[in-house]
Amino acid sequence: MLAYLSSTSGPSLRLSDFSNKHLCKTKRGSSLLVARGSFTPSTWERVVLGRRRFSGGSGSSLRVRATATAGVSLIKPKQTGDKFLDLCINTIRFLAVDAVEKANSGHPGAPMGQAPMAFTLWDKFLRFNPKNPDWVNRDRFVLSSGHGSMLLYALLYLYGYDRPTIEDIKSFCEFGSCATSHPENFLLPGVEVTTGPLGSGVAQAVGLAMAEAHLAAMFNTPEEKLVDHYTYFIMSDGCMQEGVTSEAASLGGHLGLGKLIGFFDDNKITFDGPTDLAFSEDIAKRFESYGWQVLAVEDGNCDIAAIEHAIAQARSDLTRPSLILVPTAIGFGSPQYANTRFAHGEPLGADEVRATRENLGWTYPPFEVPDEALKHFRRKIQEGARLEHEWTELFGRYKNKHPDQAALFERMVIRKEKSPGWEKALKDCAAKTGAMATRQVSGAMLNALASVMPEIIGGSADLAPSNNTLLKGFGDFSRHNYKAKNLRFGVREAAMTAITAGIKLHGTGLFPYCATFLIFTDYARGMLRLAALSEAGITFVTTHDSVGLGEDGPTHQPIEQLASLRAMPNLYMFRPCDANECAAGYALSIKHDDKVVLLALTRQKTNKLDTSSYDGALRGAYVVSDNSPSGAHPDVILIGTGSEVDVVMEAADQLRTNDGMKVRVVSMPCMELFEEQDAGYQESVFPSVVPRSRRVVCEAATSFGWSRYADHFVCIDRFGASGKGPDLMKFFGITPTNVVEKARGAVGKGL
Amino acid sequence: MLAYLSSTSGPSLRLSDFSNKHLCKTKRGSSLLVARGSFTPSTWERVVLGRRRFSGGSGSSLRVRATATAGVSLIKPKQTGDKFLDLCINTIRFLAVDAVEKANSGHPGAPMGQAPMAFTLWDKFLRFNPKNPDWVNRDRFVLSSGHGSMLLYALLYLYGYDRPTIEDIKSFCEFGSCATSHPENFLLPGVEVTTGPLGSGVAQAVGLAMAEAHLAAMFNTPEEKLVDHYTYFIMSDGCMQEGVTSEAASLGGHLGLGKLIGFFDDNKITFDGPTDLAFSEDIAKRFESYGWQVLAVEDGNCDIAAIEHAIAQARSDLTRPSLILVPTAIGFGSPQYANTRFAHGEPLGADEVRATRENLGWTYPPFEVPDEALKHFRRKIQEGARLEHEWTELFGRYKNKHPDQAALFERMVIRKEKSPGWEKALKDCAAKTGAMATRQVSGAMLNALASVMPEIIGGSADLAPSNNTLLKGFGDFSRHNYKAKNLRFGVREAAMTAITAGIKLHGTGLFPYCATFLIFTDYARGMLRLAALSEAGITFVTTHDSVGLGEDGPTHQPIEQLASLRAMPNLYMFRPCDANECAAGYALSIKHDDKVVLLALTRQKTNKLDTSSYDGALRGAYVVSDNSPSGAHPDVILIGTGSEVDVVMEAADQLRTNDGMKVRVVSMPCMELFEEQDAGYQESVFPSVVPRSRRVVCEAATSFGWSRYADHFVCIDRFGASGKGPDLMKFFGITPTNVVEKARGAVGKGL
Repeated sequence: MLAYLSSTSGPSLRLSDFSNKHLCKTKRGSSLLVARGSFTPSTWERVVLGRRRFSGGSGSSLRVRATATAGVSLIKPKQTGDKFLDLCINTIRFLAVDAVEKANSGHPGAPMGQAPMAFTLWDKFLRFNPKNPDWVNRDRFVLSSGHGSMLLYALLYLYGYDRPTIEDIKSFCEFGSCATSHPENFLLPGVEVTTGPLGSGVAQAVGLAMAEAHLAAMFNTPEEKLVDHYTYFIMSDGCMQEGVTSEAASLGGHLGLGKLIGFFDDNKITFDGPTDLAFSEDIAKRFESYGWQVLAVEDGNCDIAAIEHAIAQARSDLTRPSLILVPTAIGFGSPQYANTRFAHGEPLGADEVRATRENLGWTYPPFEVPDEALKHFRRKIQEGARLEHEWTELFGRYKNKHPDQAALFERMVIRKEKSPGWEKALKDCAAKTGAMATRQVSGAMLNALASVMPEIIGGSADLAPSNNTLLKGFGDFSRHNYKAKNLRFGVREAAMTAITAGIKLHGTGLFPYCATFLIFTDYARGMLRLAALSEAGITFVTTHDSVGLGEDGPTHQPIEQLASLRAMPNLYMFRPCDANECAAGYALSIKHDDKVVLLALTRQKTNKLDTSSYDGALRGAYVVSDNSPSGAHPDVILIGTGSEVDVVMEAADQLRTNDGMKVRVVSMPCMELFEEQDAGYQESVFPSVVPRSRRVVCEAATSFGWSRYADHFVCIDRFGASGKGPDLMKFFGITPTNVVEKARGAVGKGL
Repeated sequence: MLAYLSSTSGPSLRLSDFSNKHLCKTKRGSSLLVARGSFTPSTWERVVLGRRRFSGGSGSSLRVRATATAGVSLIKPKQTGDKFLDLCINTIRFLAVDAVEKANSGHPGAPMGQAPMAFTLWDKFLRFNPKNPDWVNRDRFVLSSGHGSMLLYALLYLYGYDRPTIEDIKSFCEFGSCATSHPENFLLPGVEVTTGPLGSGVAQAVGLAMAEAHLAAMFNTPEEKLVDHYTYFIMSDGCMQEGVTSEAASLGGHLGLGKLIGFFDDNKITFDGPTDLAFSEDIAKRFESYGWQVLAVEDGNCDIAAIEHAIAQARSDLTRPSLILVPTAIGFGSPQYANTRFAHGEPLGADEVRATRENLGWTYPPFEVPDEALKHFRRKIQEGARLEHEWTELFGRYKNKHPDQAALFERMVIRKEKSPGWEKALKDCAAKTGAMATRQVSGAMLNALASVMPEIIGGSADLAPSNNTLLKGFGDFSRHNYKAKNLRFGVREAAMTAITAGIKLHGTGLFPYCATFLIFTDYARGMLRLAALSEAGITFVTTHDSVGLGEDGPTHQPIEQLASLRAMPNLYMFRPCDANECAAGYALSIKHDDKVVLLALTRQKTNKLDTSSYDGALRGAYVVSDNSPSGAHPDVILIGTGSEVDVVMEAADQLRTNDGMKVRVVSMPCMELFEEQDAGYQESVFPSVVPRSRRVVCEAATSFGWSRYADHFVCIDRFGASGKGPDLMKFFGITPTNVVEKARGAVGKGL
């Protein structure tokens, strides 16, 4: 049992208050009693040790140094009991220790604790080909506790991937290194998904496992299991506490993802100190409640056989995901920081690195890998080549027997080419779609795409009928039907987003989408950003995109969401005004595998413009109406997006009719896309001779961010209200009348 | 058992596939077999009924109508077995039904199902004074399933609160009504917290219970329990699925909040259909794993005695929170929509309202409350007055015995006045604080405030040593020490934010703060927005506010967060450059009880300016340096925030020395605050004669949103990178050199 000093034990403490006593010295030389494990510097300041009084240091800057041990030592000298295993595992540990030490940054403790389980998994079970990290049927491994990234880099290097090299590892955390602080899939092949934000790895792993299940159902035959791999992840205490993990694990259990296997690195230490500062769940019970098989290892530091046995058991139950609880010591081997938060987020320090080497009997200099260990690790190069070769042979047989399916597999999964016909499907759909809510347009487009794109799969966070995201006739993806294409995410926006990213990052040609109300992207924002950063080009369908949604009121009415999404890199916030533009939004997503496209769609009906344009929308902004004579410039430019294009069109008519003005109307479904166009095109839409002072933007959302294009706003810079949509539009002034008034003001013709 | 048609059962279905058969007709007149409960329109399109083929409608537009019942009827005619109880409960139900019907908007099903549990709670247990909704020691009631708001409005009206009146209820969902679609605490006394975004009520309820526990520990004596109330909530399936609920429930269990009692409205229906589309948790087991007492009622529609018994049992266990599982029928009483998703988010329709009246034996016209029921409900007016009176007498005795504590209670809890001395504490702290990271400054300020403000309480999401948020000597809030002031939220950003809002909305003068890295506000954004909307003026401390944080890389480096927070209404995004400005940030929060103040602080050291100003910062932006002669205007204005004020100060020096330019430097810690200043002040800082084309802004974040103030940006419009902070600042061009170059360009002196 760990204990720690806190004011809950009163201001003064006696030796007798603690079991597992440990006498320590601060760097200032004072003596201090700390309990085994950790303590919280914040909450003790004066501790009575015997009759000596100690005034503590402050916060995280204070470190304790073990001197004499009254009771147990922090670390058992015992390791696995097998010298060669110890050699291999310590090779991983010391690559992490040395890299963190050299970088003077990073987390040594997690890799030191996780090395035994990771080694056992990679060495005995994981199927991969180091020389082809993209081999379709590889097992997927996700390090959800991404702060311990050196574990993953050590594994990739040791097992023979081209990168990271030992030089990459020596440049860990340095600018330009592919061995970044947290694993980044877009920098380093072999990193399946980007992790670091806690819980994100678990949720993305659920997505990877869903992709595997779906593709297996699509392609496998009883004889040829083209797609047949496991998805493994390692999660930490931090992952365990994040809500996104709960959401994802619950869905994973519901779906019975039997080839999803997680390790819980149960080291009882988080950044602040012992987990029991904030956490006292019965984890096994919790995961059982989700429908997982829960297995436990007693000693995750030393008992390799038990880890191996647990993995085998996890693999053998194909009806449900498995979580293996693995108690470890964070910073295993460090005499003074093992089992403390000081092994978490800082290098051990030169002295402690030396002491740890001694403690674990590690005689090699920094970054040196013992030959016999390396030879053992590198056997996986040959083994991996063999695995892929066997699979290629299997695919050859499949191709002979099922040429059509094989052709689809080659195009979609291997070459990752989009199905031909998608653009025609979109344009045909747009052509036959009239005035209606853009969410309905979107529903029609998704179904049009589904009719030609077997790679489509997706769903909503329990708002399918409202988001119009159901693919008719394609069934509900469930434990009984992994072939179905409608994903039922439940009310779990964060997990949904990470799962959708995981499906995309499975890298097998799937075209996944997810959906919720625009407002609830706020629940998903952490995972949405990660998807954008990870270059996971998912399609995110959002509906109910303004106060126009009506009665649901301010908790449901987006105001700042459009702006906040425009501000996010690698994401196109696309707000179409009608079917032509909506088609362009989907086209944008299909064309960009590495960018998130988020569609913002209306609940209410919008007109279909005569002049809207698929091609125009694909340039982000374009002129939909202009009565200026050829060669002349307009008096004023009105800018609208989505449902407000109707408003500015109407205002333009009034200004032309009543004021005889030359008015240009610009529809701007995607600001970010417009900003990528060349300067000539930009000038053609917004000529400098019509400066911002002569431009009015109308959007039923915050004006924040629009100053780049206009000085006059018909926008909403406050939270919404409950009421009927049209009443609210009027109350908030999103009307042609207000646009007219602002336009008149802009050209000095104010009433 | 519920069953529903899905493609998992194959494309065609036979009568024999289902128990509880129910023969239905669509509005188009076709016949259709649906199982009891619900079905999923998406997944069936062609269903064989006997030998008749039915082509289904699409999505949510299709409704089924019961015609003949082959097997069981949907609703047992049995109600509670007690006529008077039925009268009271149906009074609640029909207020909800009639209001939703009149509004043609809202959710009738939830109130119809929850009426028995809510009635039992309010009638038998809840302690409140309808004529003083602010009575300090009232029990708190939270409707986490906020979409069923009519339940709450019916209770408030019936039990004698001044609002809503019956007229308010008749105007449910109309623009201007206080009976809004979702309950809004800032519109209607008696609504403790705003709900609607699912899970938010559960998390805020945990905050309410924590506030109660803390105040009780601060003020109660063994004889006088000044603060001694329960916090109740009702949650739905949707709440159950959201991650924020998991986080909050886990912390609530950890903290042993024995006076927190929840009802789970277990109706097995979500928006999309049956919950088992996406959810199959063992809920009891899950909550037990969090350390909750889980109680179950067998029939939540009819068995009032069982509900009463469960509540009593929940109240009697003061060592842990309790969850009562209450199976109900959504839309109880509606012959055709009970137990279906059609009772969820739409009015029943005139015919079905009539049928429901018949079914439940309700003979009263819309909005009529039977006299004897009203008389029964309204007895609470007298009872509530008595409860408050007894408490007032108790407080009188307390005052005599503990005059100092009573004085504090009166000032802080009742009058909600901030402790005197806070401003001096901040200014003194600023005066003695030199150049250091603003996160360290913030840590000093929090501790300075804690020394004079007993109302302070707060903590971090497991980043306390990094966020510098520990209050030294104030202990860790735990089940053993509710008096302590350091909250250990664990890695639970969303729940942390909602809990902190809940503590604030307890309405008893506490000054709560919470903290994480700026980037992880993305995890909390849904709850942060709700806090802003709810006018819960919490202080949100964020650190590591730019790529300047260094190695942690792009997953941890904010880019778009500053902009996205500036775009949010009712929230001040405050980014101080040094101690004087940091003091202003805390002052801003202390002065505004109804606005969220979010501080963005550096990991890295910043200079302390000679010219920075507390008062200036409290105007949002101000001039920190200008070498223009009196009366002349500067050639260029450089704008900086936070750590980049140092950058622009250095650039200004270079421009003055090397180019002989007149340069003004503006520090802008809070854009939103500046925009609230009068036009004269705004003009004095940014004179129109120095237009945007002559202004340069430098901020190590996206340029999005800055066009309102400048045309030239030294910003970062992409994701960050791993590397040392100074290297990254250089790589991304956040340097005096770049500012100088932009400034030269702006005045036509480009190199």
